[in-house]
Amino acid sequence: MNDMIEGLIRKILGPESIQLDDSAVLDPGPGKIAFTTDSFTVTPLFFPGGDIGKLAVNGTVNDLAVMGAIPLYLSCALILEEGLDMGELTKILESMRRAADYAGVKIVTGDTKVVGKGAADGIYINTAGIGIMENEALRGEIAPGDAVLINGSIGDHGVAVMAERNRLSFTRGLLSDCAPLNHLMERVASNCPGAVKFARDATRGGVASVLNEIVKNRHFSATLNEASFPVKDEVKGVCGLLGIEPLYVANEGKLVMVCDGGRAEEIVHAMRETEEGREACIIGSIGAEYPGKVVLETEIGGRRMLPLLAEEQLPRIC
Amino acid sequence: MNDMIEGLIRKILGPESIQLDDSAVLDPGPGKIAFTTDSFTVTPLFFPGGDIGKLAVNGTVNDLAVMGAIPLYLSCALILEEGLDMGELTKILESMRRAADYAGVKIVTGDTKVVGKGAADGIYINTAGIGIMENEALRGEIAPGDAVLINGSIGDHGVAVMAERNRLSFTRGLLSDCAPLNHLMERVASNCPGAVKFARDATRGGVASVLNEIVKNRHFSATLNEASFPVKDEVKGVCGLLGIEPLYVANEGKLVMVCDGGRAEEIVHAMRETEEGREACIIGSIGAEYPGKVVLETEIGGRRMLPLLAEEQLPRIC
Repeated sequence: MNDMIEGLIRKILGPESIQLDDSAVLDPGPGKIAFTTDSFTVTPLFFPGGDIGKLAVNGTVNDLAVMGAIPLYLSCALILEEGLDMGELTKILESMRRAADYAGVKIVTGDTKVVGKGAADGIYINTAGIGIMENEALRGEIAPGDAVLINGSIGDHGVAVMAERNRLSFTRGLLSDCAPLNHLMERVASNCPGAVKFARDATRGGVASVLNEIVKNRHFSATLNEASFPVKDEVKGVCGLLGIEPLYVANEGKLVMVCDGGRAEEIVHAMRETEEGREACIIGSIGAEYPGKVVLETEIGGRRMLPLLAEEQLPRIC
Repeated sequence: MNDMIEGLIRKILGPESIQLDDSAVLDPGPGKIAFTTDSFTVTPLFFPGGDIGKLAVNGTVNDLAVMGAIPLYLSCALILEEGLDMGELTKILESMRRAADYAGVKIVTGDTKVVGKGAADGIYINTAGIGIMENEALRGEIAPGDAVLINGSIGDHGVAVMAERNRLSFTRGLLSDCAPLNHLMERVASNCPGAVKFARDATRGGVASVLNEIVKNRHFSATLNEASFPVKDEVKGVCGLLGIEPLYVANEGKLVMVCDGGRAEEIVHAMRETEEGREACIIGSIGAEYPGKVVLETEIGGRRMLPLLAEEQLPRIC
């Protein structure tokens, strides 16, 4: 079985793009590098708009991209449950290959372990990634008056996966937003140098959790304007039904940015020039009242806090 | 549960040594880097001489070291099964920390996923690693007349794990050889510059598999002298009982080296100066007859082939 699997991986991910049980020797060039890792345990393995393979590539690409790094190299470590359908594995590997090609990264090293029936759930994928640091100025000082931006509609990934898992039929047409954010980050860096103070992909815990991390123990707040951010009707519907706030739902192709208020329009314009930023917009601002808190200004004019949630609302979402 | 786990990880692996859900920014210095990944699914989690945490650190350190790289940074991605004993997790993390300190590497980034009861087997650990290339000349041309070396007794890890798994009592006292090989590699590189043509840690598939990889489709053979290599009595006993050849059993702190025959003694001497090379010795040679084959010269004067085995003899050994 191992030989067949290794043959499949080499064939799909490319004879030179994967070295098994070995190290890749790389020349990322001078300067600092970024290094990250993520394991993917999403269930189901296939969902509208993506699968665990696409997710594993884009998730790690995004962790690098939001740091201001240019993602270059990925590792691919598979844990396979005995009896996994080879057709499914093939689809997942092909999906990884396409995602890596689209993001412009190379899968340069890998590992495969097979565990017995019942010792895993189909397949788990770990990707670690290396990027070169392009833009260290990304770690700017956040202050009242700054704007909060997003690159499109929120909650698509979490709701698409949950709908697939629970066979909800009324979300038909809703796709996960799973996408690489490096092209968008690079466009913004080249069109608006020095403008971005902070960027973070809004995965587990959603946009509200990213904002809570930003304001935690700080002297400023983040205020979101409910009318301003795009939420698809299907996402609103499912969240309303389950009493979940879309701002806490996982995304896999969305990032939250903070920048000087005066440069927000310029960044929105640059993001909109990219495939992943077509619906970019300003969704809120950094303020001086309610220090350390995230505040939602509702569509009917009220205000409520968006605290950091202790628990994950949706397990196995990535 | 996530908060508790993340708190534990930060506490044990160090507040600065782990960044969750984020990228580490590193400065490995100029030149080429080596990059590798490995997932660890060993069962049982604790075995004589080590545990899954120690294994996860040393396994990746060794993949880098045998390439001639100096290991610097590791990632640590955990997949935890719901209900995993927190005492066990603590022990595993403490073991990772000790192993990283001893090897001289830093755990700089991490990720934790929790899956439901029955969706994993306690804990799986992935470590990816980055090292700087010290010695690119390691890729020398192997030729007849070269010597084959090892740094100590073979089969200890595989037999120690199997004995623990099957509660064999007559191997009491046998420990896994789980250890980092970077100090040994660095000593050899500094004492005998340019001498090593090839090095590979003999993990899954053991020494015989490494040698088969070396000779595959080449015009030379590798001949091992059975009388020359150290095998502990407990390992011989278990292997004899089960009809397994110790040369195929996994090691986790042993490497096979190939060098010019004239420099073998010098390298053995350098290895013996290190903790991990106390029992280093010459175990065979590269020859011109039987091209592409690995040949064992038995203690009673016979010769037999050691083919590449299609199947793993012991699953979940690392």
